[in-house]
Amino acid sequence: MKEQLNIIKVGGPVVEDEDSLQSLLMSFSSLRGLKILVHGGGKIATALAEKLGVETRMIDGRRITSAEMLKVVTMVYGGLVNKDVVARLQALGVNAIGLTGADMNIIMSVKRPVELVNFGFVGDIKYVNVQALKSLLDAGAVPVLAPLTHDKEGNMLNTNADTIASAAAQALTPLYDVTLTFTSSMPGVLSDVNDPDSVIPTIAKADFESLVSSGTVSAGMIPKLQNAFNAIDAGVRRVIITSASQLGSGTTIQADPETDD
Amino acid sequence: MKEQLNIIKVGGPVVEDEDSLQSLLMSFSSLRGLKILVHGGGKIATALAEKLGVETRMIDGRRITSAEMLKVVTMVYGGLVNKDVVARLQALGVNAIGLTGADMNIIMSVKRPVELVNFGFVGDIKYVNVQALKSLLDAGAVPVLAPLTHDKEGNMLNTNADTIASAAAQALTPLYDVTLTFTSSMPGVLSDVNDPDSVIPTIAKADFESLVSSGTVSAGMIPKLQNAFNAIDAGVRRVIITSASQLGSGTTIQADPETDD
Repeated sequence: MKEQLNIIKVGGPVVEDEDSLQSLLMSFSSLRGLKILVHGGGKIATALAEKLGVETRMIDGRRITSAEMLKVVTMVYGGLVNKDVVARLQALGVNAIGLTGADMNIIMSVKRPVELVNFGFVGDIKYVNVQALKSLLDAGAVPVLAPLTHDKEGNMLNTNADTIASAAAQALTPLYDVTLTFTSSMPGVLSDVNDPDSVIPTIAKADFESLVSSGTVSAGMIPKLQNAFNAIDAGVRRVIITSASQLGSGTTIQADPETDD
Repeated sequence: MKEQLNIIKVGGPVVEDEDSLQSLLMSFSSLRGLKILVHGGGKIATALAEKLGVETRMIDGRRITSAEMLKVVTMVYGGLVNKDVVARLQALGVNAIGLTGADMNIIMSVKRPVELVNFGFVGDIKYVNVQALKSLLDAGAVPVLAPLTHDKEGNMLNTNADTIASAAAQALTPLYDVTLTFTSSMPGVLSDVNDPDSVIPTIAKADFESLVSSGTVSAGMIPKLQNAFNAIDAGVRRVIITSASQLGSGTTIQADPETDD
């Protein structure tokens, strides 16, 4: 039986709020076994960019990354946020190690080709270095991944944190029994969006369409669920959507209905 | 016989100049065997601080690190400079991994007590995690250390790069045959400061005083040599002072006169 590995993606809103970050890190520190944390930090980058007079442009929620913006996100994601998270986890007894895709060539990407939009220095993932991640996990380290990759030609590239979490989960699935968790402002997928106690415990692929067509799943949750099923289709055993302070609970997304295997 | 380990410290002036950085990294990439790079980056931090309206104050060449300045150096040293160096080394075929003291608890420090001067968030090194560094070297990684440590209580701290290089060299000496190299704008210690061809090949401790009293060693080189002999006194086998583009040559500082052991 493969060893269990938890990959937790925590988004900007959690990272950017002192209390919710500490709550997430305490919850993360209490998870047993192998684990990886993937973080965002977009709003901090936007705030720094503004102070430096670097214009923030977003298209469909994705950041256009100019050469100057690449410096900003490298400083914020790879420096400020990543090291803050690592230092706090170390204080909580977690042997964290902060990494970008460049470190040990963990994640290699190629600059996104210019089509309708020129996203600038944004990297599409080509390769996850499973052996390097395994060597760190074997050494007892807990990787903390910033949403940055590199092109193996000397350049850092900006890569979405959800995409990094999904790609790492998919790549590590042959070696580990991977659970991929996306944190949300909600405690999970709710059957009644106004009732936080109405968390749907499990959603199988067969349920997804009917939940959407019946309007049970709200518009904002649909891309999250689609993202989850993409990871499932790529072999990840289960994806959990939960709040940052309640890791281990929430909604479990699976390929097939829950069984007792 | 212990395995050889090269620890190279490269200062701000090299890191901050595009051509000299590339020259150093090419020289570093051609070094065979185990190696660690320690970098500075003070001028880039000062420039960013100025853009952000954060005042830079130095006392005896040491940076006063306010809470705001700590964010700046964490972004610049841990993010911008460290990841630029790592990405470039990866492009040169070096399996670099960028680290601060917080990562894997590599270097733990305590906030410097306030005496005559309040240096702010500056860390005095208490502990180098030799086993963590060894595990990375064993995994084939090349650590690239930023001049940042942590207090194991959740806070990053600013620590001088020379001090980090010396402390790492001293701590690793029981496991490895360590050569500690400080890069300089000169090709080594010169017997004639106006003649770059007058590099003194070796300086033993017994020579140091006479070189100073005869005026052979210039004022600017004295603290570098004192620093080197401090490392030697703490057990480091040899310290080399050389230019960033000529790693492997330069002046070798040793406890005793050169022997053929």
